[in-house]
Amino acid sequence: QQTFEINSDPHTRLNILTGERVLVSPHRSKRPWQGQVEDDNQEQRPSYDPKCYLCPTNERADGDVNPDYKESFVFVNDFSALLKDTPTADINEDELFIAESEKGICKVIAFSPRHDLTLPEMSVPAIKAVVDVWQKEFAALAEHEWIKYIQIFENKGAIMGCSNPHPHGQIWSQNHVPVELKKESKNQKTYFDNHGVTMLSAYVQAELRKNERIIEENDSFVALVPFWASWPYETMIVSKRPVQNILAFTDQEKEQLASILKLLTTRYDNLFNTSFPYSAGMHQAPVNSGDFPEWHWHMHFYPPLLRSATVKKFMVGYEMLANPQRDITPEFAAQQLRNCSTTHYKNV
Amino acid sequence: QQTFEINSDPHTRLNILTGERVLVSPHRSKRPWQGQVEDDNQEQRPSYDPKCYLCPTNERADGDVNPDYKESFVFVNDFSALLKDTPTADINEDELFIAESEKGICKVIAFSPRHDLTLPEMSVPAIKAVVDVWQKEFAALAEHEWIKYIQIFENKGAIMGCSNPHPHGQIWSQNHVPVELKKESKNQKTYFDNHGVTMLSAYVQAELRKNERIIEENDSFVALVPFWASWPYETMIVSKRPVQNILAFTDQEKEQLASILKLLTTRYDNLFNTSFPYSAGMHQAPVNSGDFPEWHWHMHFYPPLLRSATVKKFMVGYEMLANPQRDITPEFAAQQLRNCSTTHYKNV
Ligand SMILES: O=P(O)(O)O[C@H]1O[C@H](CO)[C@@H](O)[C@H](O)[C@H]1O
Ligand SMILES: O=P(O)(O)O[C@H]1O[C@H](CO)[C@@H](O)[C@H](O)[C@H]1O
Repeated sequence: QQTFEINSDPHTRLNILTGERVLVSPHRSKRPWQGQVEDDNQEQRPSYDPKCYLCPTNERADGDVNPDYKESFVFVNDFSALLKDTPTADINEDELFIAESEKGICKVIAFSPRHDLTLPEMSVPAIKAVVDVWQKEFAALAEHEWIKYIQIFENKGAIMGCSNPHPHGQIWSQNHVPVELKKESKNQKTYFDNHGVTMLSAYVQAELRKNERIIEENDSFVALVPFWASWPYETMIVSKRPVQNILAFTDQEKEQLASILKLLTTRYDNLFNTSFPYSAGMHQAPVNSGDFPEWHWHMHFYPPLLRSATVKKFMVGYEMLANPQRDITPEFAAQQLRNCSTTHYKNV
Repeated sequence: QQTFEINSDPHTRLNILTGERVLVSPHRSKRPWQGQVEDDNQEQRPSYDPKCYLCPTNERADGDVNPDYKESFVFVNDFSALLKDTPTADINEDELFIAESEKGICKVIAFSPRHDLTLPEMSVPAIKAVVDVWQKEFAALAEHEWIKYIQIFENKGAIMGCSNPHPHGQIWSQNHVPVELKKESKNQKTYFDNHGVTMLSAYVQAELRKNERIIEENDSFVALVPFWASWPYETMIVSKRPVQNILAFTDQEKEQLASILKLLTTRYDNLFNTSFPYSAGMHQAPVNSGDFPEWHWHMHFYPPLLRSATVKKFMVGYEMLANPQRDITPEFAAQQLRNCSTTHYKNV
């Protein structure tokens, strides 16, 4: 063989958002798997579970009782990783021991009163109600002058550390910008300064032209497997309009976000006929720190599964110590997701 | 409360090797756990397994037959992520689609002919023989002018993606320096340029003075929980002498490395009375690319367990999207490891 083939030869690809590379080893997907297999997560859940601390009218860890809510329900995390009243400190001992106090507010959002649903099983209007709550909560948190960054996310599935299957997400907000966001800020700014448009505008246009990694598209959003995806079925939803955060979305855009969320997560469930686990979350510009015209709203989906409902990708030894690594190509993953139906397997 | 308490208040700490912060939330360790629990991995294994592709005299995936080896045994990975003969390519499409071919050699090292052992259960001379092999393999790989970085590592335990319990590690070598190493190179260089000593020399001396996070010490090595540890029981072995890579170790140093490896991994097993899973690996200077006086050999241990043999830390949503996060403090973790016996629980 004389010429390089991106579909079969080992190579690295640059994640233009983080500035870090992923190692792609396409030929390695033939490797047999004799290691750990996961639960396939097929249990049926009741629509109401008297022992669930997220179900309406139940009691939570701190003794509070949930209201009989009909859409979504938001409360401050009973075991928040960040607290509002942490005293300030800034430590630097000989450039070796460097620490700083961090304060913040952590919230939990139950997406639905129904214990047995997940996003792909909810109606578009019900998902739209969740998007409305995300927007409202983002606005309320940004009113605290000291909050500089707001992370909206969801851990779905026990394999992703989710300790309660009741559909819910979280928001962690804090007074400094976390490490992944700093990387994305830096690279988006460099591109914007050089080209006068946001990096993700140019990227999405190029991807739409190529039409190789696109999963879904509507008037306002695109869902695709990024060229530099690390996780086997990693995807990203990007707004067509370059907006800095969720506050800019119109009612129509919020409905289109709900619609693309339903379609993408339905394809995910249909890929392996399982409630597809992932961690997902929005990346948005910092708040209360000026204007960031280079920042382009997007939402990452990081799912762990590789070959089936029970075989995941392990990001371990080489990946932790040296470099993220993947076996199947992003193009192959996109093709698999494009082949999936948008009718949920439970309804077929 | 008026003043900041590092043992109880949320804060970030800087990893001086990577330049990235970890969020520490000590107050959160009281959180109850209702999520996924892992297998506790207590099975007894035979000393020889006829179905194991690493045991002496057995056949491997490619049809080769293992020799009847008595210490360790090295071969090229039958499913290598990197290959020697990959054609060269360097792609950059509009600063959006950036890729480069990567070539390398991946090897597997069986640590012992005994299927039922792990490092802490091996004798110091038997571990010393493994260190000798690491040194020999490093030297042989570095003879290829085109190889620029050599990653020696071990994935231990099914939870860490290890698909065969026979004690073994891996070496992946390649023609570019991976992302984590670039970070560590940059920060070590800055420190060395400013202070004229390696960052880890200064750090280890300061840690020895404080004696708060030290687990083991001998004439040549220190094992400690780094101030910036991300994983609950993350540790690091650092050589007292600032050497760029394993080739510099004398026979006495190799024996002392074997000894500290046995003591550290024995404490790990005793922490939760289980064969303690981890990914571990050495970080060393790039090869065939000049001199790196700032580089200081060290070995990271990234273990996933948090509270018991079955409850791990999930680095998921917030951690993947924003910032690594931990609950227990590095000081608490160090104290727990210091309290563990250095006699393996199976021998008590
Ligand atoms: O090479 P192995 O043992 O087959 O595979 C294991 O280690 C590799 C290197 O860390 C990872 O890429 C794999 O995900 C993991 O399962
Ligand atoms: O907040 P939860 O759901 O209790 O916990 C889960 O999500 C958090 C945020 O990603 C992680 O820190 C935890 O490790 C994970 O188990």
